[in-house]
Amino acid sequence: MGIKYDREMLLEQVRLQMNEKRYRHSLGVADSARRLAERYGADPDKAELAGYVHDYCKCWPAERMREYLVRYDFPDDVLQGDKNLWHAFVGAIVIQTELGITDPDVLQAVRYHTTGRVGMSLLEKVVCLADYIEPNRDFPGVDEIRIRAEQDLDQALAFALGGTIQDLISRNKPVYPLTLLAYNDLLV
Amino acid sequence: MGIKYDREMLLEQVRLQMNEKRYRHSLGVADSARRLAERYGADPDKAELAGYVHDYCKCWPAERMREYLVRYDFPDDVLQGDKNLWHAFVGAIVIQTELGITDPDVLQAVRYHTTGRVGMSLLEKVVCLADYIEPNRDFPGVDEIRIRAEQDLDQALAFALGGTIQDLISRNKPVYPLTLLAYNDLLV
Repeated sequence: MGIKYDREMLLEQVRLQMNEKRYRHSLGVADSARRLAERYGADPDKAELAGYVHDYCKCWPAERMREYLVRYDFPDDVLQGDKNLWHAFVGAIVIQTELGITDPDVLQAVRYHTTGRVGMSLLEKVVCLADYIEPNRDFPGVDEIRIRAEQDLDQALAFALGGTIQDLISRNKPVYPLTLLAYNDLLV
Repeated sequence: MGIKYDREMLLEQVRLQMNEKRYRHSLGVADSARRLAERYGADPDKAELAGYVHDYCKCWPAERMREYLVRYDFPDDVLQGDKNLWHAFVGAIVIQTELGITDPDVLQAVRYHTTGRVGMSLLEKVVCLADYIEPNRDFPGVDEIRIRAEQDLDQALAFALGGTIQDLISRNKPVYPLTLLAYNDLLV
């Protein structure tokens, strides 16, 4: 259990990548992820660390993220797809090279925090759900997700991902297939 | 263009497979599919025929459909998935063996009329959309689909499939992945 790192130095580095609002969100996700990890039996330290760094690249220009996607040979459906998903895939690379984070559980939690995937680990679920419910979040339905998050991790996350899919459809946007597969997977 | 068959004999056979309400629905889909085909340049005769037979197995007991799925070696995700999808896959087999329908366009239109798929043909789109909007249909949002169906086939069908996905999610049901992929595909 647990993971060692210099928290102050890490947060300083994280803060340099993003605006103030995104930084507060990152702290919120770390806090909520730790709490959910304690509740559901994931590693709280890893959950907190993943929370701090999950949006490391979120405020980067798209072109800077695209360079990584090309260099690391990401498939066309990612490169031509929704740019809002890029920061998670790129983030999982950059937190290795720039922050020296190598723990595979943490890397996967960052990689899939936005899309979800089939067969999510406990830590991935915790970080993905924390991203929806951290205290600074305010969108229609967030309180319903917060209530469910106290009751059943899988059902709460299915509900949250389902809401994202519904919202994308209501705005005539495409839905990343992995998110739908994750939703289906969490239901059973 | 066109396709030859004995309409009276076919309808008699179709009627034997289903209740009165489902039979009226089949006539309605045939009618709406012909109209959409004329509007968007699909073959109206094939569209009408596909409409008549698209729900040929819809009222069959699940066990009878399952026999076909097993015999024709359908994948586990279908066998363990939503039984409401079976009648389309089984229908495309049975209308060959029991009705002698061999036209591949018609068979595909029946096969994918419920799920949709990536790269739907014009005829598949027409039959799938007709299934939503035929005059006997009455569900929240159907009039909005009818209006869109007059304007743009792809957008109307994306809207209709999107609504189905949203509805499934709001009832905590799994979504057949092909339907999501069809929705994405129709958007672009």
